[in-house]
Amino acid sequence: MSEDKTVRAALIIIGNEILSGRTKDANLQHLAKELNSVGVILSEVRVIPDHETMIVEAVNTMRATYDYVFTTGGIGPTHDDITAECVAKAFSLPLIRNTEAETLMRAHFERTGRELNEARLRMANTPEGASLVKNPISTAPGFRVENVYVMAGVPMVMQAMLEGIKPELIGGKTMLSRAVASYIGEGNMAAGLTALQDKYSQLDIGSYPFYKAGNRFGTTIILRHTDAHLLEKAMHEVADLMRSLGGEPEFQDMSDG
Amino acid sequence: MSEDKTVRAALIIIGNEILSGRTKDANLQHLAKELNSVGVILSEVRVIPDHETMIVEAVNTMRATYDYVFTTGGIGPTHDDITAECVAKAFSLPLIRNTEAETLMRAHFERTGRELNEARLRMANTPEGASLVKNPISTAPGFRVENVYVMAGVPMVMQAMLEGIKPELIGGKTMLSRAVASYIGEGNMAAGLTALQDKYSQLDIGSYPFYKAGNRFGTTIILRHTDAHLLEKAMHEVADLMRSLGGEPEFQDMSDG
Repeated sequence: MSEDKTVRAALIIIGNEILSGRTKDANLQHLAKELNSVGVILSEVRVIPDHETMIVEAVNTMRATYDYVFTTGGIGPTHDDITAECVAKAFSLPLIRNTEAETLMRAHFERTGRELNEARLRMANTPEGASLVKNPISTAPGFRVENVYVMAGVPMVMQAMLEGIKPELIGGKTMLSRAVASYIGEGNMAAGLTALQDKYSQLDIGSYPFYKAGNRFGTTIILRHTDAHLLEKAMHEVADLMRSLGGEPEFQDMSDG
Repeated sequence: MSEDKTVRAALIIIGNEILSGRTKDANLQHLAKELNSVGVILSEVRVIPDHETMIVEAVNTMRATYDYVFTTGGIGPTHDDITAECVAKAFSLPLIRNTEAETLMRAHFERTGRELNEARLRMANTPEGASLVKNPISTAPGFRVENVYVMAGVPMVMQAMLEGIKPELIGGKTMLSRAVASYIGEGNMAAGLTALQDKYSQLDIGSYPFYKAGNRFGTTIILRHTDAHLLEKAMHEVADLMRSLGGEPEFQDMSDG
C-alpha cells in the first residue's frame, strides 16, 4: 500500500442489455465496495453499448485519467462480444490466441466432456502480452493490459475474477466513512452543514434525505475521509448540530466505504 | 413522433453515494424503459461525483452528442447539491432565482406550515431562461435548458418528474424487441448466430447466457429493431437454430424495450 496518495479507478460497463433496461447492473456497487476495501476509490463509471468506437474511446480516455480501469461485459463466445478486440485496438496491440488461456480452456472442456468449438476458443483471444485474470467459475479468463482489467459481465463470474485481481492492486489510503441520521429535514440542516463543510474543508460531507412510512422524513449525513480521528470529531459536531435543531442523532454502523 | 429517425439520449448520474457503493442506482433502468416507450433510445450513461469540472464537462460533451441529456441527483438544499450551478456554467448562463419556482415553493411551504429558509430557496435557483420540470411529490422543481433535463436523484421524485417530461419528448421510431431462450450453451449457438447477424445485419442481436439451479445453463437471444415484421421473421430463424441444436425454444413475453 502506498499510504500517501489517493488511488482512483474507473469502471466501463459494456452492454446493450443494461442500456435497454432489460438487465439491471449488479457490478457497480460490488466493485465500489471491494475496491474501497483495498484503498482504491471508484471515481467514474460509464455504461456504453457493444460498439467498437465507443469502447475504444472510453478505454483510452479513462486509462489516461485513472490509476485503474475495469471493464465488465462482452467477453463471451458470440458475435456481440467484442471487448477483447476493442481493448487490443485501444492499445494498438494485435489480438492473439493466448496459449495459456487456450490450455486452461482445453483442460476444462475435456474434464467436462463438452465441445470446445471455434466460437468458445474466441474466449482465449487477448491482446498480445496481456496477463490473464482467473475465472474459477467457468474457466474462460479475463485479462489485464497495463492498468486495464477486463472482466466478465455475469455478476457471479465478475465477483470471482475480482477476488483474483484484488491482491494485485496497489491501493492508497483507505477511504473511511461515518454516518449519522436524524428526523431533521435537509433544508433545516443546510446552513449548519455548510458551516461544518467550511470548517472541515478536507472532508467529503454528503447529505441524503430519506422518507419513511407515516410521512416521517429526515436526513442522513455521510462523512468520508481517510483520517479516522478527523471523522470522529466531525461526526460528533454533526450530531451536536442535529441536537441543536431538536433531533436525536442515530449513529449508523457502516462498513467502510 | 418523427418516425424516420433514431432519437438518442444520455443519462448523467451525479452522486458520490452511488460511486462509493452506499446507494444502489435505481434510476437507470426506469429511465431506459420509459424513454423507449416514447421512441427515445438510452445510448450512454455516466456516473460521476458531485464535482464541478466533471459535471460541466459531462453535460457539455453529452449535450453535443445526444438528442437529449438527463441528469439525476444534486438538486437538494445542501452544500453538496451543485448540479444547477454546474449546468448554468456548462451553458455559460447566470444562475438566477427562478420566480416561478419560488412561487411554487412559497405556496407549498405555507400550505404545509414548514419553514422556507434560504437553504430551501436555493432549490428555486435555475440557469436563466430554464423551463421548470414539475415535482408533484415534494414541489422543488427540476428544470430544462435546451436539450438537458435536470431531475432529482430520489427515485420516487425522479419518476414523477419524468412523467411530466415524457409528453415533451419528440421520439423517433420505437425500438421493439423479441426474446427467445433455450438450454443451449452460448458457445454452441455462436456460429449460427453469426450467420444470422450477417443475414440480418440491420438487427441488434444480443446473446445472454443464463444459469439455473441444477447446473442447467442456456442462452437468451434478444433481437432489437424498429420493424416488428422483421423481428418476427428473425426470431423464428433463431428458434429454428435452437431446434437444430436440440433445444426447445421458449418465446419470452417482453414489454418492448
